[in-house]
Amino acid sequence: MSSTYNPIRLGVVGLGRAFALSAPAISSHSGIDLVAAAEPNRAHREAFTKAFHGDTYADIQTMLDEADIEAVYISTPHGLHKEHALTAIEAGKHVLVEKPMTIPLADATEMIKAAEQAGVTLIVGPSHSFDGPVALAEKLIKSGEIGRVRMIHAFYATDFLYRPRTSAELSTDLGGGVVFSQAVHQVDLVRRLAGKPAQRVTARTGGAWDSERPTEGAYSMLIDFEDELFASLTYSGYAHFDGDRLMGDISELGTPKSPDTGETARQKLTTVANEADFKTSRGFVSLESCPKADTHEHFGQVFVFGDLGDLRLTPTGVEVHNIKGCAFHEAPFRTSRAEVFDTLFEAVRNRVLPLQDGYWGRASLEICHALLASEASKDTTSLSHQHN
Amino acid sequence: MSSTYNPIRLGVVGLGRAFALSAPAISSHSGIDLVAAAEPNRAHREAFTKAFHGDTYADIQTMLDEADIEAVYISTPHGLHKEHALTAIEAGKHVLVEKPMTIPLADATEMIKAAEQAGVTLIVGPSHSFDGPVALAEKLIKSGEIGRVRMIHAFYATDFLYRPRTSAELSTDLGGGVVFSQAVHQVDLVRRLAGKPAQRVTARTGGAWDSERPTEGAYSMLIDFEDELFASLTYSGYAHFDGDRLMGDISELGTPKSPDTGETARQKLTTVANEADFKTSRGFVSLESCPKADTHEHFGQVFVFGDLGDLRLTPTGVEVHNIKGCAFHEAPFRTSRAEVFDTLFEAVRNRVLPLQDGYWGRASLEICHALLASEASKDTTSLSHQHN
Repeated sequence: MSSTYNPIRLGVVGLGRAFALSAPAISSHSGIDLVAAAEPNRAHREAFTKAFHGDTYADIQTMLDEADIEAVYISTPHGLHKEHALTAIEAGKHVLVEKPMTIPLADATEMIKAAEQAGVTLIVGPSHSFDGPVALAEKLIKSGEIGRVRMIHAFYATDFLYRPRTSAELSTDLGGGVVFSQAVHQVDLVRRLAGKPAQRVTARTGGAWDSERPTEGAYSMLIDFEDELFASLTYSGYAHFDGDRLMGDISELGTPKSPDTGETARQKLTTVANEADFKTSRGFVSLESCPKADTHEHFGQVFVFGDLGDLRLTPTGVEVHNIKGCAFHEAPFRTSRAEVFDTLFEAVRNRVLPLQDGYWGRASLEICHALLASEASKDTTSLSHQHN
Repeated sequence: MSSTYNPIRLGVVGLGRAFALSAPAISSHSGIDLVAAAEPNRAHREAFTKAFHGDTYADIQTMLDEADIEAVYISTPHGLHKEHALTAIEAGKHVLVEKPMTIPLADATEMIKAAEQAGVTLIVGPSHSFDGPVALAEKLIKSGEIGRVRMIHAFYATDFLYRPRTSAELSTDLGGGVVFSQAVHQVDLVRRLAGKPAQRVTARTGGAWDSERPTEGAYSMLIDFEDELFASLTYSGYAHFDGDRLMGDISELGTPKSPDTGETARQKLTTVANEADFKTSRGFVSLESCPKADTHEHFGQVFVFGDLGDLRLTPTGVEVHNIKGCAFHEAPFRTSRAEVFDTLFEAVRNRVLPLQDGYWGRASLEICHALLASEASKDTTSLSHQHN
């Protein structure tokens, strides 16, 4: 995938936190030329010009009208994804949209149809289903390494809810809380490992345990997949226990942590005068200040149990446990999120169908809605958008 | 609890594996004098005489007729618990019966009523709810250390199903499989930490993944407790991954493990000519050959999430994670299972009501049945024996 293969001319919408986490991967990816950005905040635009030497615009429409781009990476707040995706699609651009692709399921369908009609690619990502160890685990499973997959288990504990948040990020209706921001990751990667359609969800959520932050902050769910495969997924974003302790003290972003000296999000938040300003300050400032991963990103403990062996995902690869013992398979690492932009390149240049397309993103989104519906009804929720 | 407090004169029924695991605790407990044993296998009886200098009998009735005992520890196979418990109760003895107390719920009720009518104590144990770190965690919770408890998470992976088994132990109807033998532990300890009645269970089981061992070997379940507390419990007894790796390489029994050199149950089973003989050989042989714990027993990962902090149970104590960081609380250790015999002593001598009484044991048993019922119906199962 060297640059002789004609890199994709990419524009980005939104230079906040999500972009800051992807910027190192984009910057070093030989298949991507990031040439334009649309963002209302001037400081972020200036930082972009400095880092990428691209053109900047105050809004997406101007960027689409003026910039010479083939694809748009949409890293705006959840509530703007649909509008921005449709605008880019109508302009004939390929779209990479952050998860969740949108909040209402009907909007997801509208985005899928629009991309189909326009003949452009729609990819939903980054999400942790792109992580190198997840891709490697999928490959090992498909090769028959652990036989038939029977059960998947995923558990992660973070202080997600205490990272700086906008009010929308603390309102479930607007796509806030851990269901749409975090469950969507866990669901995405579990679905990739399951490799077959989900059927039903039973879940309990912890909502508004902290009345100052009145949205879901934790959940446990059971997912039934076809062929009697089931998965259990548990997450807390209220946690005082740091789930990265179970991952060799590597953060979700693939950076090393010192568990006993690092300041937690909860501690930090108590020292912040204005949460919205603090949030803005975590947007794109410079490539140098973006988190630099030494290993793959991860989403906490993930185990896959099969007839012939089990897989344990780590930030550097996959452990295969079988009757002979434990063998470690390393997942080659370039930058975190490199796989997302590989996928974009392959889809646009080589017409390789992406796994995480619009239908895929809608299926994960449906499970997030089912999680809420199951909690509300205290009953099991059936799924109907998992086959396409 | 020195011996000047008049130790309890105890008889045991069944000198198999369960007894072998409790023998060190009994032998060193100053409140217990183990003076008699009933067991059909002569080799085990002889080993008992050598170790405990007590009298031995081929059956429980003869022991009850002839031995001077106040209490009976029933460590026979599950299917015999009810008969042996009722026999002991009718003879006016206090009863400590291994978990599960029996299999049919109606039998559990019969045992409870019989003990009440006879005015004797009925305790269900050992189970991992007696473990020192579980007791310490309960104490920390009750002291308000982590505020309101919101969510509990438990996960363990073992090769339980490949340890030597009788045919009954591989038949669910006879109380075999991981539901009645292992879920009952996890349920017991989660209930103790929850500290309030359970209401509903939704679960999936993995059954007969290995057609040679046609019983449940794995499960995931969600338990709703009162006040919106919920718990997720996941267990695999088919696992190639050794869950003790997540517990500092300490075995369930509190003994140190070398994960890369120890022979697994699966490996060992392939070298065994007769599984029943192998099973018998793991019964009581001598005190010296019983597993000797350096730390408390454990049942894998257990996390308790509260408003003000989280607890992580370890084989030596409890980590408290809160905004200030992590503080470790050590759980004083004598022998594994010492707490079970403390409970028996306090109940019989000092009329301290045991937590793990017949009603408690029936409530955990009901959840095991609900686990199976939820899998069968693919629906949520309501509970009705959790308040007493």
